Amino acid sequence: MNRGRNLDDVAVDSRGLARVGILVISDRASRGDYQDESGKAINNFLNRTVRSNWIAVMKIVPDGIDSVANALVEMSDSEDCDLVLTTGGTGPSPRDLTPEGTRMVITRELEGFGEMMRRVSLEQVPTAILSRQTAGTRGRCLIVNLPGRPSAIDVCLNAVFPAIPYCLDLIGARPIEVNPDVCHAFRPGA
Amino acid sequence: MNRGRNLDDVAVDSRGLARVGILVISDRASRGDYQDESGKAINNFLNRTVRSNWIAVMKIVPDGIDSVANALVEMSDSEDCDLVLTTGGTGPSPRDLTPEGTRMVITRELEGFGEMMRRVSLEQVPTAILSRQTAGTRGRCLIVNLPGRPSAIDVCLNAVFPAIPYCLDLIGARPIEVNPDVCHAFRPGA
Amino acid sequence: MNRGRNLDDVAVDSRGLARVGILVISDRASRGDYQDESGKAINNFLNRTVRSNWIAVMKIVPDGIDSVANALVEMSDSEDCDLVLTTGGTGPSPRDLTPEGTRMVITRELEGFGEMMRRVSLEQVPTAILSRQTAGTRGRCLIVNLPGRPSAIDVCLNAVFPAIPYCLDLIGARPIEVNPDVCHAFRPGA
Repeated sequence: MNRGRNLDDVAVDSRGLARVGILVISDRASRGDYQDESGKAINNFLNRTVRSNWIAVMKIVPDGIDSVANALVEMSDSEDCDLVLTTGGTGPSPRDLTPEGTRMVITRELEGFGEMMRRVSLEQVPTAILSRQTAGTRGRCLIVNLPGRPSAIDVCLNAVFPAIPYCLDLIGARPIEVNPDVCHAFRPGA
Repeated sequence: MNRGRNLDDVAVDSRGLARVGILVISDRASRGDYQDESGKAINNFLNRTVRSNWIAVMKIVPDGIDSVANALVEMSDSEDCDLVLTTGGTGPSPRDLTPEGTRMVITRELEGFGEMMRRVSLEQVPTAILSRQTAGTRGRCLIVNLPGRPSAIDVCLNAVFPAIPYCLDLIGARPIEVNPDVCHAFRPGA
Repeated sequence: MNRGRNLDDVAVDSRGLARVGILVISDRASRGDYQDESGKAINNFLNRTVRSNWIAVMKIVPDGIDSVANALVEMSDSEDCDLVLTTGGTGPSPRDLTPEGTRMVITRELEGFGEMMRRVSLEQVPTAILSRQTAGTRGRCLIVNLPGRPSAIDVCLNAVFPAIPYCLDLIGARPIEVNPDVCHAFRPGA
């Protein structure tokens, strides 16, 4: 269990506070046709789960390989995000191109995230096998695809977030600390 | 749960009845060395599971990347199948080339199908991890690799079929309706 | 259950005894900075699990795509190994390049091994989803990535080894026989 790590140490990381990107991928939300709910759901999860200070970087883009790939490059390379959580575009429909855009820019894929998210979502709906969510790293940034529905987002984040702080450590991203009452983050040897 | 969808609506889809391809991939069966049992097992499953009318398109080809890829292109593009179920050629043996042939022609892979089929097959035999079955879409056609043994086919179809009607809707294929006493197909929001 | 196979038949395979490669992938171990424990853990597992005679081929190389790919080619092609078990280099850290090196040299991937190892490791630690282990075949050789920690090695080998003897049969490798008190190897039809 992650305990006793000094939050002050985190606060004085020479690169400043951890930066978390929230990328909403949706044709309709990007046109303003409806109020985005999924970015908000991710933000709420982070607010109750991450107890070290962090900065949110929000972005809404339409579906598409290039739109997703370009936004991810901008958020990891220019905006210097340590973690980017995407929502939307992971199904089998013709406009669902988030995994393709993600694979364009990650240098190594972490298959375990997609497997885990499909597995826990299967306990909710049999159509979870249609989800093509994946995850991977781009330099010091971890990118994770989440589903589009707010309720499914929570199910998936609860399942994968325990592994995220340690993953950020391993790739040299800025560290984050989670609230142990909400999320059992694990750092081997910690 | 899928209820109340009007079967008459399905019947009058302007493109006609749903077309389901059954592709038997086997050197021996294609030479006529033995009577195919796996195509029959798939057909039996469909007959008791799909309650809307559908047309079967059967084909037997030898193992091989090209033989599989060509047959899948013909069944999806020329024969206009909405769904193609393959059987055979998914193990690690040198002549098992069905996943390679399938990946040649699908434009997006649905990893969750293979994961799910291996997972339920593991409850039967520990060698289920040797299976390389996958699934994916080609335009408006969903292609799913099934194992070669009739008993394993039933285990896998029972596991993945609940997600298939909704998947066909999402990719713009002709709709199919299942018998709710046999298969708990799920359409979110239906 | 695998019973009644004649061990003498195995011993007189015209190609001689089965050869099992153990490849330790670690910058530090290859420099001699510390005593390798993971290769030893694999060796111990094999000694108590494989009851037919076999020959160990050991090698330690630094992390890296080329170092891993070259060692695997040497062990499968020149050293004529039937099975190569690697340890180390499967995480998300920048120097973890074992899956990339493995994918360079296998001709077909067996996704079920990685899924299974992540799944059983998840029962131990939530960070198991960070593991990128895979497996695949190169000609008559089966290559399986294992984790780096000795305790995790045992968990993974216990999970996947039951499928290995049958896999070796299917790809035309020399057969191995396991101790049924330790490992429930399964050969369909045997």
